[in-house]
Amino acid sequence: MIKVAVDGMGGDFAPQLVVEGAVQAANSFDDLEIVITGREDAIKRELYRHKVTGGKISIRHASEVVEMSDSPVQAIKKKKDSSLSVCIQLLKQKETDAVVTAGNTGAAVAAATLNLGLLPGIKRPGIAIAVPTLRGITIAVDVGANIDPTPEHLLQYAIMGDTYARYLLRKKKPSIGLLNIGEEESKGTETLQETYKLLRDSGLNFLGNIEGRDFFSGKCDVIVCDGFAGNVVLKMTESILEMMITLITKEIQKDFLARIGAFLCKPAFESIRRETNYEEAGGAPLLGVDGVVIIGHGISSAKAVRNAIRVAREAILEHVNEHIIEGIHSHLNAGLNPPVKSVPIPKVNP
Amino acid sequence: MIKVAVDGMGGDFAPQLVVEGAVQAANSFDDLEIVITGREDAIKRELYRHKVTGGKISIRHASEVVEMSDSPVQAIKKKKDSSLSVCIQLLKQKETDAVVTAGNTGAAVAAATLNLGLLPGIKRPGIAIAVPTLRGITIAVDVGANIDPTPEHLLQYAIMGDTYARYLLRKKKPSIGLLNIGEEESKGTETLQETYKLLRDSGLNFLGNIEGRDFFSGKCDVIVCDGFAGNVVLKMTESILEMMITLITKEIQKDFLARIGAFLCKPAFESIRRETNYEEAGGAPLLGVDGVVIIGHGISSAKAVRNAIRVAREAILEHVNEHIIEGIHSHLNAGLNPPVKSVPIPKVNP
Repeated sequence: MIKVAVDGMGGDFAPQLVVEGAVQAANSFDDLEIVITGREDAIKRELYRHKVTGGKISIRHASEVVEMSDSPVQAIKKKKDSSLSVCIQLLKQKETDAVVTAGNTGAAVAAATLNLGLLPGIKRPGIAIAVPTLRGITIAVDVGANIDPTPEHLLQYAIMGDTYARYLLRKKKPSIGLLNIGEEESKGTETLQETYKLLRDSGLNFLGNIEGRDFFSGKCDVIVCDGFAGNVVLKMTESILEMMITLITKEIQKDFLARIGAFLCKPAFESIRRETNYEEAGGAPLLGVDGVVIIGHGISSAKAVRNAIRVAREAILEHVNEHIIEGIHSHLNAGLNPPVKSVPIPKVNP
Repeated sequence: MIKVAVDGMGGDFAPQLVVEGAVQAANSFDDLEIVITGREDAIKRELYRHKVTGGKISIRHASEVVEMSDSPVQAIKKKKDSSLSVCIQLLKQKETDAVVTAGNTGAAVAAATLNLGLLPGIKRPGIAIAVPTLRGITIAVDVGANIDPTPEHLLQYAIMGDTYARYLLRKKKPSIGLLNIGEEESKGTETLQETYKLLRDSGLNFLGNIEGRDFFSGKCDVIVCDGFAGNVVLKMTESILEMMITLITKEIQKDFLARIGAFLCKPAFESIRRETNYEEAGGAPLLGVDGVVIIGHGISSAKAVRNAIRVAREAILEHVNEHIIEGIHSHLNAGLNPPVKSVPIPKVNP
């Protein structure tokens, strides 16, 4: 069985939609056991609403809640018995194989990094998100864990993104792009110029710099970016889609024929909404920490929570972290021919 | 008369669409005289196509062309007789009141900064762009001139953006937001934390940090951002709109009723396309240089060029640069009561 700890109090609609998502996941995957952390009475009540009593879902009580407005330091130092903290502890003590949280991202990154530590060789963790594009899914990493990365951090994000794309998206030789303000090697900050050289010499399938306009074109499988720009772009995406919908609705209301037209177009619009919906991706893996940690959007719906748990399950089944260790290891040893052998892959909790 | 120098060879569709845009502008505004720089024969041919011979449009020959792929340094050092260079020289020698170019942005920023110098007190120029939002136009500054700004640079962008919003958009007390990855004062890099304090104490109508999701919400009148994130967001916007159009077209093709629906919705879609079209904004002022310099998009259409010239004209008529000097001046003297008097406003070329 695969065991996933779910932060029952994390997210704007916790515990209701988190519990609902956990129930959906438990019903979808036979090999899944879920532990929900948080206030026992509240979570029990939600489980009861879904007619779940025991079985594949259990509760681990946690008396405190990390609020969205808490600073990461506050969250970790002052709320040792939070639902987030208890999740991370369950993973640390190997009682579960993964953590899923839709709560405070900064707190999740800090709690995971400090308590679980990093994978061997990794300098800083990065958040990887699946971006829907015109040619399928692109992975963007980092989108907010590290707002002041060094070239080495960015190279490691490329290696981790490459692994993610290989094993979770089944891309054979993922193409890597570096988010910059121009395509030429000389563009961008000194950090990015240095990163360009590292990526060019990395043995990865590096396409070169890409610009903002390539974010949704599907030009590459992995977009390496600094956490600041990545985070801004990610949040901006939501607002532009919302803006388009508002504009379309407003314009269509003005005109009777357009209202009929919009009615006829509705299935097409619904289909687009599904294709570009964050709920499908579900959650963003925090790559580089020693454990599978999936961070969901604060406004996660039940479906998004369910899919975040699905991503956690896949990351465990595909041994993503073990492959990251391999990737970093063989990069660190790239200078020393002959090429290093793979490190042994530890077994997942049975 | 207002005299504007237009870089006849700058932009992906130069000289054709640049000349066409210049002709449209000359026809729209009686008080406008335009000098187009570039290869005389090519520009003359285009003017001839539009049946323009002399009158309000003249040509200044320039033998070289700055390519989009040239580095700013190459462009300035090696192409002294480029159409861009000649434009800037015309402004420097006060033969014209403004420059409009849709060419290489980096080269335009470098050429303007080095040749024209900066306004008194200004440390670095910034590119300001008009962003269409749900509640009208928002100014974002900087979107690419300065990818590694200090807090002081960002404060000055706020002051310049405030001036732009007051005098070109007629906003009474423009609200200012700082683009960051969270709303709290403690969020973001040290540079942004320091900038937050400067803005809070600046006397400007500072709303605080805004996130990517507020870029198109119209939450504030001026978005202050570092040139890297600003540039990425700007270019990304184009790609996401394109993606939406492609997706909508694809989905609608699948379904006969939706095709009829789309036909009925067409006027509404056209209206949205107009509202969100970069062509309306036309060009982005390079704020902070000692002269009015408007930078257009590389793919500028004739209409975009025409509107960039319109923006140049308005910046001159509204004495934007003189008001920037006032703003910077009164900020620099804010500590020394009583408040400083306005500096005298020089007259525009008659």
